[in-house]
Amino acid sequence: MKIIHDLNEIYAQIDFVRRDAKRIGLVPTMGALHAGHLSLVQRAKQDGEIAVATIFVNPTQFGPKDDLAKYPRTLDSDLTALREQGCDIVFVPPSDRIYSGSHSTFVEPPSVARRWEGELRPGHFRGVATIVLKLFQLIPAHVAYFGRKDYQQVAVIQAMVDDLNLPIRIEACETVREPDGLAMSSRNRYLSKEDRVRAVGLWRALSLAQRRLDAGENTRASLEAAMRAELEKAPVDSIDYAAIVHPGSMEPVEVVEESAIAIIAARVGSTRLIDNMTIMAKEVQRMERTE
Amino acid sequence: MKIIHDLNEIYAQIDFVRRDAKRIGLVPTMGALHAGHLSLVQRAKQDGEIAVATIFVNPTQFGPKDDLAKYPRTLDSDLTALREQGCDIVFVPPSDRIYSGSHSTFVEPPSVARRWEGELRPGHFRGVATIVLKLFQLIPAHVAYFGRKDYQQVAVIQAMVDDLNLPIRIEACETVREPDGLAMSSRNRYLSKEDRVRAVGLWRALSLAQRRLDAGENTRASLEAAMRAELEKAPVDSIDYAAIVHPGSMEPVEVVEESAIAIIAARVGSTRLIDNMTIMAKEVQRMERTE
Repeated sequence: MKIIHDLNEIYAQIDFVRRDAKRIGLVPTMGALHAGHLSLVQRAKQDGEIAVATIFVNPTQFGPKDDLAKYPRTLDSDLTALREQGCDIVFVPPSDRIYSGSHSTFVEPPSVARRWEGELRPGHFRGVATIVLKLFQLIPAHVAYFGRKDYQQVAVIQAMVDDLNLPIRIEACETVREPDGLAMSSRNRYLSKEDRVRAVGLWRALSLAQRRLDAGENTRASLEAAMRAELEKAPVDSIDYAAIVHPGSMEPVEVVEESAIAIIAARVGSTRLIDNMTIMAKEVQRMERTE
Repeated sequence: MKIIHDLNEIYAQIDFVRRDAKRIGLVPTMGALHAGHLSLVQRAKQDGEIAVATIFVNPTQFGPKDDLAKYPRTLDSDLTALREQGCDIVFVPPSDRIYSGSHSTFVEPPSVARRWEGELRPGHFRGVATIVLKLFQLIPAHVAYFGRKDYQQVAVIQAMVDDLNLPIRIEACETVREPDGLAMSSRNRYLSKEDRVRAVGLWRALSLAQRRLDAGENTRASLEAAMRAELEKAPVDSIDYAAIVHPGSMEPVEVVEESAIAIIAARVGSTRLIDNMTIMAKEVQRMERTE
């Protein structure tokens, strides 16, 4: 596994590999890797690609109240895990080479960035879109893999790719969960033992939304109320949102006709967690099964 | 000369040509081609590149008060001129394929976009940066050629390329002028015979700034006053700005120590014209000559 720090070197390396008509699969990460990240690398390898992971804690996507300083940094174990996964190249750029002192160009993110995380974390998606665009330029890959756990992030990146004609395909991969349902997240390591038990409330609330939909409850009002009640049972310490939204626009959906995304952001102890689930009406589930 | 309208086709074509290890030179234009544009194509051919021109009147860089509707469209003669110049590929995309109905991602341009054209034409550089980024994605060229006549535009694009790590080199090429000094511009065709005579005032004012600097006048105040007086002698109908700025930041320069850029925007009849000139202190001119 090649570890590259230099910006010119990573571009030259990838450009060179591309000329061999090899397909490149990119897995951008902020490190603190867990089974979710590693499943993305696995996926690239299964697809027969040269797997390139990046590890960079991107300052521009953290707000002033966010946890940039204390974001977990576990480079050694990250590299070991990537090596075990068969990752081919890891790009670990120094922060001051990614953002020069005079850096002032940003991506103004698409409209799907407006609500939810975009509203609660002003500037977050501007930072995400900017770093992802930069990485796509430095590493001209054919495919980039992202975890569906950050559903809105994937939607923002997909819209950016479409709008700006970026020559890359975005693959959104299934959320990897702990046996009890908690979505894998680098922030889970902040949870105390007691927080950890309560954190599964997000998954329970999402699953409940699906069960209620199965039972014929298909209005936003009733599904959101059910999710909130379940979150309060956990109990979580505060709820940023618990909503039923359109898979494409992420605007609230009043009645779930076929499918929608249930999304939650809540705080457990001092840790802010997000999760989501695609919920489907019974008929659609049947169709999906027979396809 | 290949004429391509389809977005997937242009990307596939360029990607294919790149694999032959051929160098690609890109000349983005809004059509209404003049000798300035053609000199950029010439330059690419001289450098041994596959020359790719684009013709697209980009709506997002025009403000509500700008001349989008009446911007000259001369596709047939443009194609003839490009063919004569030995241009290899021309990309002429339909407008609705470049901006879909849901398009909402833009480039937030770098700080060098703030003043002058950026201030007088709100949103202009946001539109320019966005379309140029899109074209750079659709046409992964090695070099892109721009005319120095739009000095601030080149500065914005260069800063965007640096900030977003776009893998392309920007070449700023000398302004091509009419025999009397008027800078070539697609908008010159709007000038009446009488406007045309007065329009040379911009070049006269810029040249005067250099002569005054030769004579030892090196303060912004005196040089700008000289330019304004010359413009009023033409006379132009109004002056948007006549300024002495730093070549990199485009911030005003109080005293010209070595070199600076003299920039002008003025209206002649109903036509808004811009022009600029690098002005140099005598010692620097001498050094340039001996280099």
